[in-house]
Amino acid sequence: MSDTLPHAEGALQGIRVIDLTRVISGPFCTQMLGDHGAEVIKIEPPGRGDIVRSQGNMVNGFSWYFAQFNRNKRSLTLDLRQEEGRAILIRLLEDADVLVENFRPGVMGKMGLDDATLRERFPHLVVGRINGFGSTGPYRDRPAYDFIAQAMSGFMGVNGPADGEPMRAAPPISDMVSSQNLAFGISAALVRRERTGQGDIVETALTNGLISMMGYLAAEYFATGEVPRRTGNDHPMLYPYGLFQASDGEVAIAPSNDIMVERFLGALDMRSLLEDERFADNRRRMANREALREILNRVIERRSVAEWIEHLNEAGVPCGRVHDLRDTFEDPQVQAQQMTLELDQGAHGKVPTTGFPVKMSEAPAALHHPVPGLGEHSEAILAELGLSDAELAELRKKGVT
Amino acid sequence: MSDTLPHAEGALQGIRVIDLTRVISGPFCTQMLGDHGAEVIKIEPPGRGDIVRSQGNMVNGFSWYFAQFNRNKRSLTLDLRQEEGRAILIRLLEDADVLVENFRPGVMGKMGLDDATLRERFPHLVVGRINGFGSTGPYRDRPAYDFIAQAMSGFMGVNGPADGEPMRAAPPISDMVSSQNLAFGISAALVRRERTGQGDIVETALTNGLISMMGYLAAEYFATGEVPRRTGNDHPMLYPYGLFQASDGEVAIAPSNDIMVERFLGALDMRSLLEDERFADNRRRMANREALREILNRVIERRSVAEWIEHLNEAGVPCGRVHDLRDTFEDPQVQAQQMTLELDQGAHGKVPTTGFPVKMSEAPAALHHPVPGLGEHSEAILAELGLSDAELAELRKKGVT
Repeated sequence: MSDTLPHAEGALQGIRVIDLTRVISGPFCTQMLGDHGAEVIKIEPPGRGDIVRSQGNMVNGFSWYFAQFNRNKRSLTLDLRQEEGRAILIRLLEDADVLVENFRPGVMGKMGLDDATLRERFPHLVVGRINGFGSTGPYRDRPAYDFIAQAMSGFMGVNGPADGEPMRAAPPISDMVSSQNLAFGISAALVRRERTGQGDIVETALTNGLISMMGYLAAEYFATGEVPRRTGNDHPMLYPYGLFQASDGEVAIAPSNDIMVERFLGALDMRSLLEDERFADNRRRMANREALREILNRVIERRSVAEWIEHLNEAGVPCGRVHDLRDTFEDPQVQAQQMTLELDQGAHGKVPTTGFPVKMSEAPAALHHPVPGLGEHSEAILAELGLSDAELAELRKKGVT
Repeated sequence: MSDTLPHAEGALQGIRVIDLTRVISGPFCTQMLGDHGAEVIKIEPPGRGDIVRSQGNMVNGFSWYFAQFNRNKRSLTLDLRQEEGRAILIRLLEDADVLVENFRPGVMGKMGLDDATLRERFPHLVVGRINGFGSTGPYRDRPAYDFIAQAMSGFMGVNGPADGEPMRAAPPISDMVSSQNLAFGISAALVRRERTGQGDIVETALTNGLISMMGYLAAEYFATGEVPRRTGNDHPMLYPYGLFQASDGEVAIAPSNDIMVERFLGALDMRSLLEDERFADNRRRMANREALREILNRVIERRSVAEWIEHLNEAGVPCGRVHDLRDTFEDPQVQAQQMTLELDQGAHGKVPTTGFPVKMSEAPAALHHPVPGLGEHSEAILAELGLSDAELAELRKKGVT
């Protein structure tokens, strides 16, 4: 399977994925499958391909944004608007384990591949799908986008300063979460297929993924009927907790219970504050938060972030620097965890991407392929299907591949 | 397997999970496995159990926060500090497919279950593990917490107002993401086990999960060496995009390319703005963002959020209301997608929780068990292991269960 790189067996070795997805949600999912050893065939329209190929920061004519989501795949160009393109897709599906798509609801049906047809023709196939709002319900046909999913899931509404507007998270978090959900769902469906021989249709949605992550905030709303208020970086129920001002920047400190608070104040040599009636327990500390914040910052501003981090970690208090992305990727822990991965893109040079978040001991995630050029593997993949050179030339002439 | 509820077969039916996790990361993962049909045995210390049982909003003596993370599990109390408790854990592992733990590195070793021992004694077992920073590297022993992971991953640093401080997301997002990653990794390892008969050790970390989600922001840093700046709700590269002020609140509008921008301005009957040299292309619109924002808000404030949403969706422009959690859970789409799930907790009453984000057609996620009382299934599970009533009485006397 591997063209160019030393082969390491991943957990999903032997699983063949036909990938019709583009942009972020979908490509991130299939990349996770590929990282863990699945053979991923990315099908792209001839000409431009996935639009992300020409978006974001281009270096040596190569999109580093695209690289973030498309390693460990091979690329086959196929015009699915043409009958011949769809015929090849169907031949690929006959030998595939997984199909993933992120079209709007209805597009697969127009290609003659609605759910009933997929289930009947390819009973072993696991079909994975991501969309904005789910494929049933009143909004199923609405266009979706991460920003809208952040707004409508309630996620944006709980984030941000107490006195400010609702605040999005900058990364496209609904795309990423729904991709991770789909990678899980596809894998779980594959476990079942081993048992029953049957495929399944697995679906995730940008909004649903974020809603499932509301955790205790959802519990609070359900229990009280009151919507949780934005509290910025303050914890809604605990103090001290949050960002504090050291001499050279902000330090995040998160004592999550009374024992930790004692350790924290002990590390500041201010345990006596607990004898002050304003601060004797969490309820009173919450009521007098601003007074306590001022006292603590007065002490914390005397030393540097690095000094506090060393000192507080010694005392067993969860704390850390607020990293910008340079700090993050230069952090020795992040490097020890290999959370960057350098791709050798030949003439385009070396391209760093974020690394594998799921570590496995026996069958680790690995780099099997760098990011494919558009249609780089068309010839090889079509030859594997048994197409002759003449047939291939005919398809080329018609612009099918 | 099911005690009380009608049985639906899930994708992970027949997979037995021994769950040593507590708090959020870990319990969210094993709940996902349980939602999809795995049999999850939650092992808790006798007495207090998982500390979340007594945290958050308590209704009728029952934590609705705990309910968010612990449906579809059975509970067995076991004191793992006692030899007899560890002996029962080992008997359970002999018949288990998956073990999940979120202790600090080293705790399993102190129980006599370091990785080498686990691999040797239980070669078929898939071991899943979540921790703060990973189990290698200089920070492996540091205490972690979601707030710290948000700070150190770089996630907090890119979120927040352009002129304000770095901003956390309110949900414990690093816990949730690392749980989702682990559910994927465990399932992928189970796929491999079907093929090879071998288990694996799968690990995720709070920081690593968020780092892997930095997407184009990481690409931007890698490509330019510049750290991405906070831009609040504005997109760093596109305008118009973001929150706009309608007559009765904020509306999120996200035209992601020039075609969408044309549709958006057309829907406002202001397409002529594209002939204004300040706004003719995205680059110029970014340079004159505040001027354009003012013009657009002047039009948008004339109609209500609901009117704009209907009108813009008709025009194919991604848009939505900024929902608080009440709006979210009352939204007809969220209800159509069944994103709440009501648990019948007997004497504690009915308890709503968030629903299943991964939908499957043939083997859907389902409610197999409500949230277990502490040790509710101790007797049944120990009897399944073949313990006699006398042995059980002895264990009880010693406080092992």
